[in-house]
Amino acid sequence: MKVSDATRAEAREADTRTRIITTADRLYRQMGFQKTTVADIARELGMSPANVYRFFRSKDEINEAVGRQLLGEVLAAGLEIAGRDGPAAERLHALFTTVERMNTERFTVEKKLHDLVALALTENWQIVFDYVERMDAVIARIIADGMNRGEFRAGDPQQAARCLHTALIRYSHPRLMVECAEFEDPTLEQMIKFGIAALR
Amino acid sequence: MKVSDATRAEAREADTRTRIITTADRLYRQMGFQKTTVADIARELGMSPANVYRFFRSKDEINEAVGRQLLGEVLAAGLEIAGRDGPAAERLHALFTTVERMNTERFTVEKKLHDLVALALTENWQIVFDYVERMDAVIARIIADGMNRGEFRAGDPQQAARCLHTALIRYSHPRLMVECAEFEDPTLEQMIKFGIAALR
Repeated sequence: MKVSDATRAEAREADTRTRIITTADRLYRQMGFQKTTVADIARELGMSPANVYRFFRSKDEINEAVGRQLLGEVLAAGLEIAGRDGPAAERLHALFTTVERMNTERFTVEKKLHDLVALALTENWQIVFDYVERMDAVIARIIADGMNRGEFRAGDPQQAARCLHTALIRYSHPRLMVECAEFEDPTLEQMIKFGIAALR
Repeated sequence: MKVSDATRAEAREADTRTRIITTADRLYRQMGFQKTTVADIARELGMSPANVYRFFRSKDEINEAVGRQLLGEVLAAGLEIAGRDGPAAERLHALFTTVERMNTERFTVEKKLHDLVALALTENWQIVFDYVERMDAVIARIIADGMNRGEFRAGDPQQAARCLHTALIRYSHPRLMVECAEFEDPTLEQMIKFGIAALR
């Protein structure tokens, strides 16, 4: 096999992997991740289950990839906001309202995805740790910027980011969002204001 | 029946009710609340199950009474702290460290009680709402005091209390305490400091 053929083969493999994840994500939203089988995913893609197993050793691995993609989308939105111009306080506000909106869609409107991420939390999947760590870094980047501009008081941006992220956990944690839905107060707006006040 | 007899009978009834709750609490800690039957509780007390049912219509009602007592103990500790002299910031620090310590004992050391309160949270028992509302009021009392002393900036103490309580949910919510145990940061100390900074 020539180099260009090998490259093309690799690209095809990556593409198939993505298609499996996208299809699994769609079926999980429609039927729930517990009811969806590897055979269902293969059938949707017009391939054999054996072919799916070439890419993912088990359904657990597919679940993990779907979860990683879901959280990756939230991270990408956070990164885009961190890179914007303007006051750090405004970017933090945009970040937490965006995370809350994306998670509300996924975890309360699309209850079936909620179940997947709730399982991930229970099983302490590495993806959840990775997500929290990376989102902390995005938040720290905005806070460091605010400290440099004199918008926030000087300090350790990483530690401040972990505190702010934790203070707002009720608006990003899939299970808490469902559990706390009946508590009207504090609103997300009030909590963001409270959290930003702690940084000034 | 004379009045004094009626009073004595009432006192005896209240006493029996308390003994049922205390015994249920002990058995729940030993065997777990799901495995404990009303017959087990009655046997421990040397009474018939029918007598237990005179006081509680179902095991659900006993669960609720045990849960209410557990949370009532935390509230009582909070009230005692709110009534102390000294800076409001110190009392808030004492309150949140006490709540965290009591809940760690109950929900992580005594895993079996954790299951009971986790169920209460899932089923949205009124006791959880009552507890949050009453603890918010205890925290608001300390914050109002701090605002009056000029320790904290002026504002709505009730709203500030709800924000502070929510910001620290990771250290009082039974399920989060278990889930987040592997995240070392932020520490409770860091979070209390962060929350109090938001009030200044």
